[in-house]
Amino acid sequence: MQVYIEPIGRLINEFSKLPGVGKKSAQRYAYKIIDMTDEEAREFADAILNVKKKVKYCKICGNFTEGDECDICKQRDHRIICVVKEPKDVIALEKLHEFKGVYHVLHGVINPMAGVGPNDIRIRELLARAGDAEEVILATNPDVEGDATALYIAKLLKPLGVKVTRLAHGIPIGSEIEYTDDVTLSRAFVERKEM
Amino acid sequence: MQVYIEPIGRLINEFSKLPGVGKKSAQRYAYKIIDMTDEEAREFADAILNVKKKVKYCKICGNFTEGDECDICKQRDHRIICVVKEPKDVIALEKLHEFKGVYHVLHGVINPMAGVGPNDIRIRELLARAGDAEEVILATNPDVEGDATALYIAKLLKPLGVKVTRLAHGIPIGSEIEYTDDVTLSRAFVERKEM
Repeated sequence: MQVYIEPIGRLINEFSKLPGVGKKSAQRYAYKIIDMTDEEAREFADAILNVKKKVKYCKICGNFTEGDECDICKQRDHRIICVVKEPKDVIALEKLHEFKGVYHVLHGVINPMAGVGPNDIRIRELLARAGDAEEVILATNPDVEGDATALYIAKLLKPLGVKVTRLAHGIPIGSEIEYTDDVTLSRAFVERKEM
Repeated sequence: MQVYIEPIGRLINEFSKLPGVGKKSAQRYAYKIIDMTDEEAREFADAILNVKKKVKYCKICGNFTEGDECDICKQRDHRIICVVKEPKDVIALEKLHEFKGVYHVLHGVINPMAGVGPNDIRIRELLARAGDAEEVILATNPDVEGDATALYIAKLLKPLGVKVTRLAHGIPIGSEIEYTDDVTLSRAFVERKEM
């Protein structure tokens, strides 16, 4: 006798596909669905289908959008382009309400170990639009692949006469030097600034 | 400008309704859905609708089932009934592969503070079927409401001449006395057994 009846087992299996969701959480989620009204469950299922139907990539920046161009590309200053790895990085930066330019989502970073080369991410599209920009800010993650990708892009952009910058790395605000990891601390030393 | 476009915001909102899922996890789940193929997303949505359509409650024990009666009620010994609070307790006990009787799911416990009285849970249904049983095992949780519910049911069942038992409480196997909480420890003292 199996532990779950088929429809519940199937739903638990689907929830297990979500990142970081184990068997136990998937079971709790499935029970929550069973406890929902038919209407609530239908809305849930519909939201899943809706997101697949409506969400496209902006043809300029590659961010998520409902139309051809995203609202950011439509309304903001194209002279400053902030280059990020993924759409969720755009959200993290937008939450600051500080940046007034536009974005360019690479949809990945160069990672030879995983077989991702420069042609597999949206670098060509960046070169096509960056010529008119005054500044390109490279905001890929401060890890090996993110740094390598930033360096690669910077080399391609400089001949175009564009100012290329990279987000500052160093000790996070509010943290303590004692507990800062070695790599961050040594980077903070190298990139120290005159006061 | 809102941070998420409408379809993504809506899906994040739906995922946030799941137990223990915060904004950040909901966002990760939503992105995972966007990364799925249309087919995968359709299967996910369909599993949600399917579970609402197919899962019913067994008319005998109250556990989840696809038909009128669950497989456990159909195939097993009705002389021993194990009373639990929720369907997920059935799954926890079934995983042991030890119990050969049937279950009775109360769908709650008596909890006057939350306005749940004896008539709000499936006690009447239990009395209707317990008369023919040899033993009723009360497996509600060892907390105030679970204990009170077990006591209440035991008082109703004893006049019927049914043997009523309760799962043993005490120090968990493999744990240490030093780290056992006070309530459990004092309960283990009270319920100590002769060797």
